[in-house]
Amino acid sequence: MAKIVCFGEIMLRLNPEGYLRIRQANSFCASYAGGEANVAVSLANYGHHASFVSVVPDNALGESSANALRHWGVDCSQMYRGGDRLGIYFVEKGASQRPSTVIYDRKDSAIATSKREMYNWPEILDGADWFHFTGITPALAPELVEITLDACKAAKEMGIMVSCDLNYRKKLWSREEANAAMSRLVPYVDVLIANEEDAFDVFSIEATGADVATGVVEGAHYEEVAKKIVDRFGCKYVAITLRASISANDNNWGGLLYDGERSWLSTTYPIHIVDRVGGGDSFGGALIHAMLSQWESQRAIEFAAAASCLKQTIEYDFNQVSVEEVERLMAGDASGRVRR
Amino acid sequence: MAKIVCFGEIMLRLNPEGYLRIRQANSFCASYAGGEANVAVSLANYGHHASFVSVVPDNALGESSANALRHWGVDCSQMYRGGDRLGIYFVEKGASQRPSTVIYDRKDSAIATSKREMYNWPEILDGADWFHFTGITPALAPELVEITLDACKAAKEMGIMVSCDLNYRKKLWSREEANAAMSRLVPYVDVLIANEEDAFDVFSIEATGADVATGVVEGAHYEEVAKKIVDRFGCKYVAITLRASISANDNNWGGLLYDGERSWLSTTYPIHIVDRVGGGDSFGGALIHAMLSQWESQRAIEFAAAASCLKQTIEYDFNQVSVEEVERLMAGDASGRVRR
Amino acid sequence: MAKIVCFGEIMLRLNPEGYLRIRQANSFCASYAGGEANVAVSLANYGHHASFVSVVPDNALGESSANALRHWGVDCSQMYRGGDRLGIYFVEKGASQRPSTVIYDRKDSAIATSKREMYNWPEILDGADWFHFTGITPALAPELVEITLDACKAAKEMGIMVSCDLNYRKKLWSREEANAAMSRLVPYVDVLIANEEDAFDVFSIEATGADVATGVVEGAHYEEVAKKIVDRFGCKYVAITLRASISANDNNWGGLLYDGERSWLSTTYPIHIVDRVGGGDSFGGALIHAMLSQWESQRAIEFAAAASCLKQTIEYDFNQVSVEEVERLMAGDASGRVRR
Amino acid sequence: MAKIVCFGEIMLRLNPEGYLRIRQANSFCASYAGGEANVAVSLANYGHHASFVSVVPDNALGESSANALRHWGVDCSQMYRGGDRLGIYFVEKGASQRPSTVIYDRKDSAIATSKREMYNWPEILDGADWFHFTGITPALAPELVEITLDACKAAKEMGIMVSCDLNYRKKLWSREEANAAMSRLVPYVDVLIANEEDAFDVFSIEATGADVATGVVEGAHYEEVAKKIVDRFGCKYVAITLRASISANDNNWGGLLYDGERSWLSTTYPIHIVDRVGGGDSFGGALIHAMLSQWESQRAIEFAAAASCLKQTIEYDFNQVSVEEVERLMAGDASGRVRR
Amino acid sequence: MAKIVCFGEIMLRLNPEGYLRIRQANSFCASYAGGEANVAVSLANYGHHASFVSVVPDNALGESSANALRHWGVDCSQMYRGGDRLGIYFVEKGASQRPSTVIYDRKDSAIATSKREMYNWPEILDGADWFHFTGITPALAPELVEITLDACKAAKEMGIMVSCDLNYRKKLWSREEANAAMSRLVPYVDVLIANEEDAFDVFSIEATGADVATGVVEGAHYEEVAKKIVDRFGCKYVAITLRASISANDNNWGGLLYDGERSWLSTTYPIHIVDRVGGGDSFGGALIHAMLSQWESQRAIEFAAAASCLKQTIEYDFNQVSVEEVERLMAGDASGRVRR
Amino acid sequence: MAKIVCFGEIMLRLNPEGYLRIRQANSFCASYAGGEANVAVSLANYGHHASFVSVVPDNALGESSANALRHWGVDCSQMYRGGDRLGIYFVEKGASQRPSTVIYDRKDSAIATSKREMYNWPEILDGADWFHFTGITPALAPELVEITLDACKAAKEMGIMVSCDLNYRKKLWSREEANAAMSRLVPYVDVLIANEEDAFDVFSIEATGADVATGVVEGAHYEEVAKKIVDRFGCKYVAITLRASISANDNNWGGLLYDGERSWLSTTYPIHIVDRVGGGDSFGGALIHAMLSQWESQRAIEFAAAASCLKQTIEYDFNQVSVEEVERLMAGDASGRVRR
Repeated sequence: MAKIVCFGEIMLRLNPEGYLRIRQANSFCASYAGGEANVAVSLANYGHHASFVSVVPDNALGESSANALRHWGVDCSQMYRGGDRLGIYFVEKGASQRPSTVIYDRKDSAIATSKREMYNWPEILDGADWFHFTGITPALAPELVEITLDACKAAKEMGIMVSCDLNYRKKLWSREEANAAMSRLVPYVDVLIANEEDAFDVFSIEATGADVATGVVEGAHYEEVAKKIVDRFGCKYVAITLRASISANDNNWGGLLYDGERSWLSTTYPIHIVDRVGGGDSFGGALIHAMLSQWESQRAIEFAAAASCLKQTIEYDFNQVSVEEVERLMAGDASGRVRR
Repeated sequence: MAKIVCFGEIMLRLNPEGYLRIRQANSFCASYAGGEANVAVSLANYGHHASFVSVVPDNALGESSANALRHWGVDCSQMYRGGDRLGIYFVEKGASQRPSTVIYDRKDSAIATSKREMYNWPEILDGADWFHFTGITPALAPELVEITLDACKAAKEMGIMVSCDLNYRKKLWSREEANAAMSRLVPYVDVLIANEEDAFDVFSIEATGADVATGVVEGAHYEEVAKKIVDRFGCKYVAITLRASISANDNNWGGLLYDGERSWLSTTYPIHIVDRVGGGDSFGGALIHAMLSQWESQRAIEFAAAASCLKQTIEYDFNQVSVEEVERLMAGDASGRVRR
Repeated sequence: MAKIVCFGEIMLRLNPEGYLRIRQANSFCASYAGGEANVAVSLANYGHHASFVSVVPDNALGESSANALRHWGVDCSQMYRGGDRLGIYFVEKGASQRPSTVIYDRKDSAIATSKREMYNWPEILDGADWFHFTGITPALAPELVEITLDACKAAKEMGIMVSCDLNYRKKLWSREEANAAMSRLVPYVDVLIANEEDAFDVFSIEATGADVATGVVEGAHYEEVAKKIVDRFGCKYVAITLRASISANDNNWGGLLYDGERSWLSTTYPIHIVDRVGGGDSFGGALIHAMLSQWESQRAIEFAAAASCLKQTIEYDFNQVSVEEVERLMAGDASGRVRR
Repeated sequence: MAKIVCFGEIMLRLNPEGYLRIRQANSFCASYAGGEANVAVSLANYGHHASFVSVVPDNALGESSANALRHWGVDCSQMYRGGDRLGIYFVEKGASQRPSTVIYDRKDSAIATSKREMYNWPEILDGADWFHFTGITPALAPELVEITLDACKAAKEMGIMVSCDLNYRKKLWSREEANAAMSRLVPYVDVLIANEEDAFDVFSIEATGADVATGVVEGAHYEEVAKKIVDRFGCKYVAITLRASISANDNNWGGLLYDGERSWLSTTYPIHIVDRVGGGDSFGGALIHAMLSQWESQRAIEFAAAASCLKQTIEYDFNQVSVEEVERLMAGDASGRVRR
Repeated sequence: MAKIVCFGEIMLRLNPEGYLRIRQANSFCASYAGGEANVAVSLANYGHHASFVSVVPDNALGESSANALRHWGVDCSQMYRGGDRLGIYFVEKGASQRPSTVIYDRKDSAIATSKREMYNWPEILDGADWFHFTGITPALAPELVEITLDACKAAKEMGIMVSCDLNYRKKLWSREEANAAMSRLVPYVDVLIANEEDAFDVFSIEATGADVATGVVEGAHYEEVAKKIVDRFGCKYVAITLRASISANDNNWGGLLYDGERSWLSTTYPIHIVDRVGGGDSFGGALIHAMLSQWESQRAIEFAAAASCLKQTIEYDFNQVSVEEVERLMAGDASGRVRR
Repeated sequence: MAKIVCFGEIMLRLNPEGYLRIRQANSFCASYAGGEANVAVSLANYGHHASFVSVVPDNALGESSANALRHWGVDCSQMYRGGDRLGIYFVEKGASQRPSTVIYDRKDSAIATSKREMYNWPEILDGADWFHFTGITPALAPELVEITLDACKAAKEMGIMVSCDLNYRKKLWSREEANAAMSRLVPYVDVLIANEEDAFDVFSIEATGADVATGVVEGAHYEEVAKKIVDRFGCKYVAITLRASISANDNNWGGLLYDGERSWLSTTYPIHIVDRVGGGDSFGGALIHAMLSQWESQRAIEFAAAASCLKQTIEYDFNQVSVEEVERLMAGDASGRVRR
């Protein structure tokens, strides 16, 4: 059991039931989630001490966001109260040719308006083995770039491993802003995680000849991307999720891990999707578990791919699987036969 | 923005949740819909002034049927109050090899018992660019054949385009009755819409060698059907929807447009179905939009096919898509990737 | 209309809505079911006088379990009141690579603690044409082995046909215990039903080269299994369900019937699954109907396969189909087109 | 255990959830009920053989209406299949000053269009101890007056007790029509049941000085009404329910029984209402049970009042109480303390 | 039918089901409402042309807010698209001693960030008979004070009646800010509406000896308040709602109308509350209808009190009653008896 | 912030929605609760370190029971995994004269079958300020009497305060068994809590002339009971909840605290009940908080009464209120006015 500190925003997620569009909704299912919170839940599920660092408002919504994490075993003692509002996002589940859509209403959220002096990183990171953030956190506000940088520097000094999921969000900042900020942060990152498009969006690093909408997961193209990232920023590992969308219901899914020397491709899973939101985060959480377990690269990427495959068969952002369940799938039991 | 007048019945639709059978249902989802009302909603969605002409009872159900259309921007000022009851239909969603079923309870509904003198067509059609009805309306009662004929004649005199979706319903009338009535009405129709079976059921016009249950959409067979219709009735356009049912969950879907000279086939979409009811109506609504936009035949049939593909990924009868969403699919984005 | 007596446990089934995991559930859908009760409902659906013999507690849950069967036309006059509790099972529906899981909480249920002297078999079986039980009933408690044996003997003496679904449940007893008990019971059985694994689990009778998780239904391997059973126990018929799990959502499904001379394979159905629990029971119920109807072997196995295919498109354990619906599928209408 | 035959219509009841108005409803709770069916369920609950005579359409709705009664133990073997549709009614639950409202959509229902020759009353009533109908049945159609008369005459000849709940429905017939028909039927009735207004509406028999909206249940005024009925038609017993509406949520409730010699008033219950629909029917069902049990008048009216008080604390039309529960309330336990 | 223009914010309202607290909620019921929008819906219900002026974001939520108003017949042609977000409020329904609570998340909403030049008041008010706003609108932002003032001045010049509901919201502005702004606006107001506390909060005008939490509606104290408002600002009418909270479930409710000469008290209604949010707005809407109908003062205040009593028996903010229903209650039918 | 250790069973609670009876339920709301767990949640809500000691099975239900407590901040590190099943109870909410009922299905639950050697009390109680149990825990099994005694002795030795809620459950043991066991345990108890009936049921200590079903809370009678308990067992404090049931919906509620010298009565609250289950536990939790805060007796009993009044306005067993909310009610704000 290691201690991992995750830093980011947690939001109220609202989605209509089933395949209803937002404009048809008379009610919304309510849950609480966020890129880094999702990673924390994965790690708590795998038996780690996962601590989530954030700021939420001092009202029933802020309190509920913390309760939701505590429910799954995340340490919420570093979730500060402050600010005016909890960010909200609305998810509309796509079907067949109709894409899923997300409406973000996260501006001026509690964490986005938080100040550098609120965070005492040496204290927060005390006893930690790992620090994780995503590209969303610095995108929330210029101040958050500095705060995240403070965290990275402290982690580095304290000998703590640092991972980052690039997670480019074009509604939060421009590619230029992302490039500027992330270029300051990624040099502190040991393990960089990205999807097929992030590296291009943020750093203009491109996979030659890849096409994300063809239904074929072509991992080979991405070794090149990973290598370029390592060359530019000196990360130890780069992991890339590979999603080929056949339709909103059916995706092929896998991952690639580049360990500085060579890349390792996972099994590709044809997924009949229940909820794809949080898929990438569950990949990150599983990869961190694999690395904390010091597994070899092939096993690590297989674990990450299998765990995140399973996530996409589960409603809401959080991955609700145990190590045992992931390993059963890795061992080849993908038939979905009933377990009595 | 054109003005389209749609004439027909609106009913209360009741369906069990999800895949429950009617005999298992302890509750029903309630919505309001009908072949021509569905077309009106599609056209309001595309920005037109769509007016719905009907009769509904003067009670909370009649009022709700009008509110439901007004919700989506349809002009309900020509929905008269009268009669005793609102028609009802129960939809049971099929799955895999189990077919969807519909129980109609529409006899003696407000519109079915309405009288010819209630409709002042020159006034109703004043300012209209287009008049739309389906083969269901005259099937409701002998008086409705005459009322629909009145409407068609008035439209013709006023230089208004007329479209009709054949929509044969064997529970409402026999093939002989349908043939007799539709043979009087279709000569007034500029744009005739039908599915693969309607032309045979109503006019005994057959596609040589077509088989609707094979999973293959064979549009070529239907050019012949379209041509025969044009020859017999003088319509300007005939559009035919092409559905190949692989199972209740998976259909291949496309359309054909015959413009008097040649036929144009749309892309075929493999659809993982959410709700197929209203698919044909959304095709009709989209085709009318395309024609009002004076698009060329290929673009018109592609728009109609893409719009009605999307409808089948949406719950309930009404198509809830914008022109922009349809055009994104026409442009090839069928991968269902999340839009953040 | 024949009279069939089914003997076994009925339980409260609780499952989260849709694809939620049990750990995510804030509510459970409640129904009442059990292997033999499911068969009784199938037979009542087909128009027979199906009587269910069991013991349930004298409280609102026991009463509800009887009401649930009576709802579908099962004769509940032989459901005795006694014992302390109704057994419960929790079903979590799997999706894609994530398997369905079942948690049983049935220990010390009313029937499991019932005594031999409670059952007057000659009276219970009076007027019956058929007696059905499954391997679950004797697995509930040692006393139940004797009770079931009493029933089998009485049936035999009264010239009543006996069927048994092997239904091995590893949580209830060991393979050794199952073998010992079933070896005493199966000699009384005329029609033995099993899935691909039961014969091996209970009697160590194996199909050479079969692999249940490949997605291919290889019936040929199972003729050998059926023949060995007939040789060992003297059953008149052996029927085996053949399920190939592509994923938790997609299964191929069919059946084989061995009539002592040769085996008959059914059509294989690719099923997009709604609820697979009760699939085997609906196969058994349909097979009994086919045999009571004295249909030839090919028609019998086709009826059983088609009926149980349809069951898996229906929520909850009970099969909700009529003879007419099964026959429509047997006749080749598998396209799921809407029936208006 | 006596055999009671109830004759009348069963309908699909649709009501919005909770206190939503029909115009706000996106779904309806579905149940099946009717005045005489409700009585049958009460009697089955009390352990009797209650048989329901009706006609329902041969579709999933007609079948479900029978299943719903069978669920609660009612004998449905005399529910014939025929006609086109099942009657429907929509219930909107009132609150405080807002009244409950009901929309009936029962015209041309299966039973309303049934013919005299469908009913073989000597056969239907064979073995019966009691025959029950309400004023709704003859109100459905002129033919139903004759059918009901046939039933009454047959019952009389066979020495079967006859009860009738006047249940005047002004949407079904005028006061004049009701008077004409009921004046032919009531002479056959042994036990007449009515609410405070029925006797006036149907027979212009009035209680001097009664006011139904004052919140005070003034039974004394109704002895006079009962006496007049007995004098005019020769009934043995007249029972009148006494409801004082304080608001849609709070009613005072009791009953009066006139046994030809004197009247007996029940306890008055202040009810915080859950669902008042079916309250009168549960009174009738309980009174019939009391009379079949040959209880003295005071006990009979107390049982009927207590049972129908409890009904109004239960959702939907059917009374879901046992004799033991009614007797516990009669014994004075009205405090609603939890029973563990 | 008059034309009324209402100006204000419309928000997404989210509330847990039933009496659940926000911290317990796994889903929220979604509706769209706001003080002035609620008034517009009331007036549309009473048959008027009610136009709602606002700004909502150009996304599915903004669109849905307009659809929700259009559903009930409000003219939404002056709902502009712009800004970043739709305001949201969370309502937790209280029970007994537990108060209802509201969490507002409306900062930087589309209308709050709208600019003066967006509103062409002479055009917006063209053809209007009445202009309505509340104290919430100017509280949204300093710019909104000026915009509202523009509207008031334009209305005055055009001879349009102006009404304002004081509606003090302490989370939006201080008493000093409110006083400063409202003192500029109220001089343009013909009909001022307030609850028992608003006049004090905004203008420090107090009722001698009133106590809002005693369960007694003491209207007499408020004539003095109304008179002072008229004296200070010159309004023609002042109407005050009088609520005495016995508990979160039970309130006594009435109103007072001061017409410059004397005050008129309405009937006091003891309400068993379903949803009290929007009660004051329904009072305002009904009062405007009464004044447009030029009813005498007593009838006007009775109509307003009865309408708003009924509102509180209805879920969500909008009043769903017809003139006929209000008049039935005014006529004394408060017993909530079922209407068949 | 003190540390409180609570020892007892946690169960799955299943209840139909709203006022549905169990026999009407098609789904159950699922929560996890138990007498001592409820106290732990109350104390965590008030800011304490509440630790719950129990045994739950190693499956999704056991895990969920722990997650449910962790959600609300309870320390679950002493919830051991073991045994076969989680206890279950079904709650049916009463209304008006219909009582709530509970069906327990808790036999052979994980904790009931747990062994003495599993509990290392000195370690479990390390650092604790307070130990709490109820009369339910020793009632689960004879071994639990010994285990509870071990805990009490360890607490006493370690100088930890001990509280016990008598909570007599007649379905778990006889009055004789309860008397025998509790007479061994209560001598270790500093603060004894009971309802009006427990002292009589367990110790035959009676209040002269009290009648629990009269609707009047007569605390005076209970001082005598409290005094007798102190005299017999030497407890420092005895607190008694006083419930007068007017109906299942309306109760009067208060409490009495006897501090060895005199008794203190709380305010009596007339409660319109949302969910009364857990009322007594919330009283206990609040009382412990008051005592840990070393408040004087009057304030202590007022806090306990107000907190438990609020609990009964909240769904499910857990009290969801803050100290601030309780104190607001104590300060007299019982009017339930909306808080914006």
